[in-house]
Amino acid sequence: MIPGDALNELDAMLGERLSTGKSDLALHGRSETYHGEMPPDAVVYPDTTEEVARIVEICARHGLPVIGWGTGTALEGHASAPRGGVTVDFRRMDRVLEVVPEDMLVRVQPGVTREALNTELRATGLFFPVDPGANASLGGMAATRASGTTAVRYGTMRDQVRGLEVVLADGRVIRTGTRARKSSAGYDLTGLFVGSEGTLGLMTELTLRLWGQPEAISAAVCGFETTEGAIAAVILAMQMGLAPARIEYVDVATVRILNAIDGADLPERPHLLLEFHGSDAAVAEEAARFGEIAAEHGGGDYAWATRAEERSRLWSMRHRAYHTILASRPGATAVVTDVCVPISRLGEALGRAAEAVAASPLEGPILGHVGDGNYHAILMVDRDDAGEAAEAKRLSDAMVAHALELGGTATGEHGVGFGKLHLMEAEHGAAWDVMGAVKRALDPEGVMNPGKLVRGN
Amino acid sequence: MIPGDALNELDAMLGERLSTGKSDLALHGRSETYHGEMPPDAVVYPDTTEEVARIVEICARHGLPVIGWGTGTALEGHASAPRGGVTVDFRRMDRVLEVVPEDMLVRVQPGVTREALNTELRATGLFFPVDPGANASLGGMAATRASGTTAVRYGTMRDQVRGLEVVLADGRVIRTGTRARKSSAGYDLTGLFVGSEGTLGLMTELTLRLWGQPEAISAAVCGFETTEGAIAAVILAMQMGLAPARIEYVDVATVRILNAIDGADLPERPHLLLEFHGSDAAVAEEAARFGEIAAEHGGGDYAWATRAEERSRLWSMRHRAYHTILASRPGATAVVTDVCVPISRLGEALGRAAEAVAASPLEGPILGHVGDGNYHAILMVDRDDAGEAAEAKRLSDAMVAHALELGGTATGEHGVGFGKLHLMEAEHGAAWDVMGAVKRALDPEGVMNPGKLVRGN
Repeated sequence: MIPGDALNELDAMLGERLSTGKSDLALHGRSETYHGEMPPDAVVYPDTTEEVARIVEICARHGLPVIGWGTGTALEGHASAPRGGVTVDFRRMDRVLEVVPEDMLVRVQPGVTREALNTELRATGLFFPVDPGANASLGGMAATRASGTTAVRYGTMRDQVRGLEVVLADGRVIRTGTRARKSSAGYDLTGLFVGSEGTLGLMTELTLRLWGQPEAISAAVCGFETTEGAIAAVILAMQMGLAPARIEYVDVATVRILNAIDGADLPERPHLLLEFHGSDAAVAEEAARFGEIAAEHGGGDYAWATRAEERSRLWSMRHRAYHTILASRPGATAVVTDVCVPISRLGEALGRAAEAVAASPLEGPILGHVGDGNYHAILMVDRDDAGEAAEAKRLSDAMVAHALELGGTATGEHGVGFGKLHLMEAEHGAAWDVMGAVKRALDPEGVMNPGKLVRGN
Repeated sequence: MIPGDALNELDAMLGERLSTGKSDLALHGRSETYHGEMPPDAVVYPDTTEEVARIVEICARHGLPVIGWGTGTALEGHASAPRGGVTVDFRRMDRVLEVVPEDMLVRVQPGVTREALNTELRATGLFFPVDPGANASLGGMAATRASGTTAVRYGTMRDQVRGLEVVLADGRVIRTGTRARKSSAGYDLTGLFVGSEGTLGLMTELTLRLWGQPEAISAAVCGFETTEGAIAAVILAMQMGLAPARIEYVDVATVRILNAIDGADLPERPHLLLEFHGSDAAVAEEAARFGEIAAEHGGGDYAWATRAEERSRLWSMRHRAYHTILASRPGATAVVTDVCVPISRLGEALGRAAEAVAASPLEGPILGHVGDGNYHAILMVDRDDAGEAAEAKRLSDAMVAHALELGGTATGEHGVGFGKLHLMEAEHGAAWDVMGAVKRALDPEGVMNPGKLVRGN
């Protein structure tokens, strides 16, 4: 419960922008996956950095947890409130503050979504490439070090954030980074906050790198006789230095669901969905080289989509896939795996994952960003069936254990939250304690998003 | 002075690999620039991570500073010993431990130099691109977040280090990162240690990203009528999305010195030195597009070097330029500036820097990695003339103040050491205190490289 004093202080500052309504709290306690509802005690909707700083200062003084909220699309309970407290919803801080085309930079508030930013940029010839599927907020994407379909070419959020404004646990406001392309001026604090999941501070402004809109874009759908063939084609393409903008795998189970529910008309085979960006000549060359690789590995049905509407249809279908898969089992929720392995071990890792899912009573279509060695099994479970949840977690943990053996990571892009907390010791060993030491240095009272990412937080 | 007990413990472990000889100490107290000699009390030459951990543990117990040493080519006193202590020279830890061509990775000890690595890689079709000029050690390059001529295309050390083994201030050994292309598993400790200049720990192993050797390479030298024209061409090339592998500026003063001392035969004009990497077609296209841009900005004398020997001669000359410039004033040392500004402000920044040098009694040829907005004035001073040193520092600080006004940084690639310590408050504000908090969290006793990078260290 939130103390009356704290509530009064917040109310005096925010008025109607402080909410303790039951449905609003419930909404901010929800997660997109199997995690139960963990509502905060209050939700606040600040307009400015100064308000965020005062909110944090008030909460710190009263020992209340502070949780950042973008669009609520995180998958591991990052933004829910296991210990109550105050959720800072950034939806009102949604302004694109400055576009600097001559330096290919943009300065935004954290509540701007990636789609809103790209709409705003349309006329500039520039775009922001990171695309995790959901129309997430840029603050949330930076906080979770998001990536998605285009990271194989453009990198993750880690590679796009040039600088930040951050409110720390004691209410201080700092700025990290510069507008220059590089700097050696001390510790990379920007990189430290990116991926820190709100446990070190709240981002109130981001300076992001932009990219030139490609001269040409071409997308393709390519069916393969076998999973092994599809994955071998991906590995070879990456090893040969092809630079696809997207190279996505969907397994047969996913294809069946897309056909049945989303009106797709794909042969019942594993598929790769691809996109190439570049000059006309470069795109044609890459596509031709990939075609040769695919043909050698049992790939056929190589259908090209150069029209924007066709491409848009393809990637909307891909982006909807998580919800389409969930819709295939009414009432189900999901445990979503997220391992990422070195590209050379992708066949092994994905092969074993597919076998494990096949041997389990659960359904778990597999799809993912295979050019990065990252893929997801969508393990569908009945929310009220503890046995199913346990089986899904067993499968997920086994995939992580295998990924770690192969030199990979428990989470390529979804992050830790509390859903992957139990895997961090195995992945990091003593380095996890170092994360804890950094956390305590910046937030000794444990105000910022407690219960997430680090041990004992 | 080092206590006898500590010396005995180190001696028992290292025998002849512990040195207290005067010339060895002096050598490890030297800097390449104007900083005076600050020798350690002892130098150690470990062979293994375990030895490094024991050395650090012994030093921590006796309150002795520990300073890492690669090749001694840092410019801001990073590796000298202002408070004495023990310098850990990594020259014996110089093995390439594992090349993983199928994942384009290599695992190295910190004492491997970049040239040694590239020699080792020659037959693999892969290479390591970061090239700061000096044949520095990879551990040193990671510790200073080095970059250099090729960063404009391949990024800095920040972008190449996939994982680290680090000995912490208390002797613990941790591993950061994985072999996967991306991860969201907690704080980016790899990124935190890269650029930390040995103040948080000593890197004992690095996993680095490799790149495919380009199919075609083409280099060019292009003289311009004016500095403004040369810089305008660079800005436009970068804004148009050209991706040169190198795009270097040398001013007229540098050209005169190269002609006089290094046997060059360049017209007395500002020049750009360029290199393009890619497929034959891509290189030809980029070169042609740059040619058009140059011609519009008073560029001429566009001489191509496609033969490896010619290119090698060109870049050796560029790499020697610092020492060639120093040789133009016998007995001189230098204050080397290193600001980096957003590309759109490069003309302004470099123009004002050139004016300031022209108005000063000092000679200060200007050259640099202008595609990144980063350049250096080599301000030559008599080591024994306090007035000259003061004038050079005044010029340097003024350039930094201007760069910060323009949204840039005090140091694009040389780092802080103690030479740029006094500029950090202006650049970072309260964020510098956050760096201090991180430092104290990981090294509460101030064992690791004291006197560098953070306040009160």
